[in-house]
Amino acid sequence: MNAPNSFSPLSLSNRSHWASRGAISFLMQQGVENPGVLSLAAGLVDPTTLPVELAQQQLTDLLADDARARECLQYGTTPGSEHLRRELLPFFAGLEKSTPQELDLTADDLLLTTGSQQLLSLTCDALFNPGDICLVAAPTYFVFLGALEAVGAQAISVKTDSDGMCPDALDETLASLEQEGKLDRVKLIYLVSYYENPSGVSLATTRRKRIVELAKKWSKSHRLIILEDAAYRELQYDGEVYPSIWSFDTDREHVIYTQTFSKSFSPGVRVGFGLVPDELKKPFSDLKGNDDFGSAHLNQRLMAGVLDSGKYAPHVDQVKASYTLKRDAMLAAADKYFSDIEGVTWEHPHGGLYVWMSLPENIPTGFDSRLFEEAVQRQNVMYVPGELCFAADAVERNHMRLSYGVLPPDRIDEGMRSLAAAIRVIASQS
Amino acid sequence: MNAPNSFSPLSLSNRSHWASRGAISFLMQQGVENPGVLSLAAGLVDPTTLPVELAQQQLTDLLADDARARECLQYGTTPGSEHLRRELLPFFAGLEKSTPQELDLTADDLLLTTGSQQLLSLTCDALFNPGDICLVAAPTYFVFLGALEAVGAQAISVKTDSDGMCPDALDETLASLEQEGKLDRVKLIYLVSYYENPSGVSLATTRRKRIVELAKKWSKSHRLIILEDAAYRELQYDGEVYPSIWSFDTDREHVIYTQTFSKSFSPGVRVGFGLVPDELKKPFSDLKGNDDFGSAHLNQRLMAGVLDSGKYAPHVDQVKASYTLKRDAMLAAADKYFSDIEGVTWEHPHGGLYVWMSLPENIPTGFDSRLFEEAVQRQNVMYVPGELCFAADAVERNHMRLSYGVLPPDRIDEGMRSLAAAIRVIASQS
Repeated sequence: MNAPNSFSPLSLSNRSHWASRGAISFLMQQGVENPGVLSLAAGLVDPTTLPVELAQQQLTDLLADDARARECLQYGTTPGSEHLRRELLPFFAGLEKSTPQELDLTADDLLLTTGSQQLLSLTCDALFNPGDICLVAAPTYFVFLGALEAVGAQAISVKTDSDGMCPDALDETLASLEQEGKLDRVKLIYLVSYYENPSGVSLATTRRKRIVELAKKWSKSHRLIILEDAAYRELQYDGEVYPSIWSFDTDREHVIYTQTFSKSFSPGVRVGFGLVPDELKKPFSDLKGNDDFGSAHLNQRLMAGVLDSGKYAPHVDQVKASYTLKRDAMLAAADKYFSDIEGVTWEHPHGGLYVWMSLPENIPTGFDSRLFEEAVQRQNVMYVPGELCFAADAVERNHMRLSYGVLPPDRIDEGMRSLAAAIRVIASQS
Repeated sequence: MNAPNSFSPLSLSNRSHWASRGAISFLMQQGVENPGVLSLAAGLVDPTTLPVELAQQQLTDLLADDARARECLQYGTTPGSEHLRRELLPFFAGLEKSTPQELDLTADDLLLTTGSQQLLSLTCDALFNPGDICLVAAPTYFVFLGALEAVGAQAISVKTDSDGMCPDALDETLASLEQEGKLDRVKLIYLVSYYENPSGVSLATTRRKRIVELAKKWSKSHRLIILEDAAYRELQYDGEVYPSIWSFDTDREHVIYTQTFSKSFSPGVRVGFGLVPDELKKPFSDLKGNDDFGSAHLNQRLMAGVLDSGKYAPHVDQVKASYTLKRDAMLAAADKYFSDIEGVTWEHPHGGLYVWMSLPENIPTGFDSRLFEEAVQRQNVMYVPGELCFAADAVERNHMRLSYGVLPPDRIDEGMRSLAAAIRVIASQS
């Protein structure tokens, strides 16, 4: 079997080589396949929040009517079910504290995808040629960094603080890129606008407005697009209610907005949606047509039924109540076990699934670090190394993304205690 | 709104421009949104064959157990549900008239996708750089031609007859490509091995073996891969039972095999699967991880339940019985309405969903042809223009792909009568 291999080696595409980092696959495998280890890493949602009864009811109702059942089991269209897109209009407008009429939105403005991940991937396919540039926060969503890598795009970090990406730093970065003659390669600014994965911070309202203005200001040879990833928008537990970045893009030309039902309803249903500027509708639909013709129609009709049932909002309230307890449990455990470890700090998120913890700079947290080994092998706890969440131009190695998504409060406490123990071991050796 | 546009035009990726043909989106929109026109075009499946009761039963059972329900509504892994991949082993081995043990297959050899279309798209992403070459039959599946175009790959036609692609012609084509110094750009041979869309022909068994040998022979600087698209394998109505091309690839290095449940069960569930050579498993999984993390887990568990229930085979028998009647209705209508139109010929398929009809060369059938206009606008019937199904190097304009998928027998007869009328009108003007 080896001889022919060496005789005729595979010749893969550049994309295939670029995509080979695959940290997401590695981590999801870990999360799904190592239930033994206490996972503060997995971005999986809390199984107890999953809508078993609601899904049962809606699927039963959906398939009870024979004609409707046959519609659901048939192909849909590439942009997705008209039923769901119509249901999404008042849903999305509600998040915007408005109405579809006021927002001048129609079903044609919506694109349905396999989770919001597919819309992130389609955006990369639609905009980037190899060597093109995307501006990102530091830290940012590591899966998106992988998606950029997979299309040969370059991620450039912009200074970020506890109010999200800093507009002044963004302006300066764009100015220096222009001076370097690289402005024509800058296609996109990527922002997780609510309770960012991994940092848990949200972009301040004034910054949302300012960054849209900067996208317009720096649209010179071509239009600079903002990709607003609002995956965690609905998972708000307290604090300020933020308007979307999209809401400040009054001419509807600069912002691609994406959201998903994976966190608020079910990741196993894989339904996400997006709003794209008019001129991007056909390119996105053409690319998606090649990818899969359209996502599973049955699942889209299920979500349409769920939204129409009036039972979605109460379900989300339950989900939020559950995660609020778990966030509080993780923050309480952080106070309890980490307060007296010198140089350890963490963010206090108002939503989402993550607490971002920073260690002294002499304690790296990577897959190949002594801390990761100590944590996973001896303390039986896993986290996401923060270094995965930085673009190559500004990697920091002393952070951890801690998720309270999967574990119940008592196990979160146990995991945090174990993690603190691991850190004490390494700190004592440093 | 226009001034800013002209001031800052979009700058899309090459892929986005390459994907812009989007004939599939156009046609699926037509098929789904113009129920008024009698569609001999839509590749949709017959609504009456859709497994309403079976889907109801299985989804109810699946979600009845609370723990199992929460598994189904949670993320799966990128390669797909272990449950379904295990169920697929005996299923696939059965099609091969063998056992998983004899075939030395494990669940790890299987990759689950959003229909088989996603596996076609992943294959293009994994293998092709712009300018690389794929060898295709003439005619071939037009959606795959679009997928090749979308990654900047070049499709080169190989002479094809009613036994499928001609191995001698394939050998000659590869020889001349080598002489032109282009062999190192040839990555893939694409074959729809059963009841090809659009021609309805199947690749003869001797040719299957021979083409695998040719892939080995011409694997010089790198391995030449065969993509076997077996989407219609289960939809056999009569005639010879063909072994897969995959079965002749004894060292498991040259054939990517893909199949779907969209035709035999439900396209609305969008579950497909594939077998890829060992060295391609990680690249495919990495690329899919970036695309969507994995397809809908709920749907994969649904299909696992369906296969496990023992009710899948009887369902497929019903589907085949229904399509057999419809194929016979279309062929009878062809005899009835087209026999006396000079120069009109058609294939007699033993499976699948399509009849390939050829007209005199002076009667083009394209979207912009007088025939298409006459058919759709006045005779109220639609077909797929054959010219969409040829690579750019060998376009023929006088064929039509006629599908008996959607319409009942009486409407098929009506559609064929209308189509014949349209042809008589154009023929009388030629």
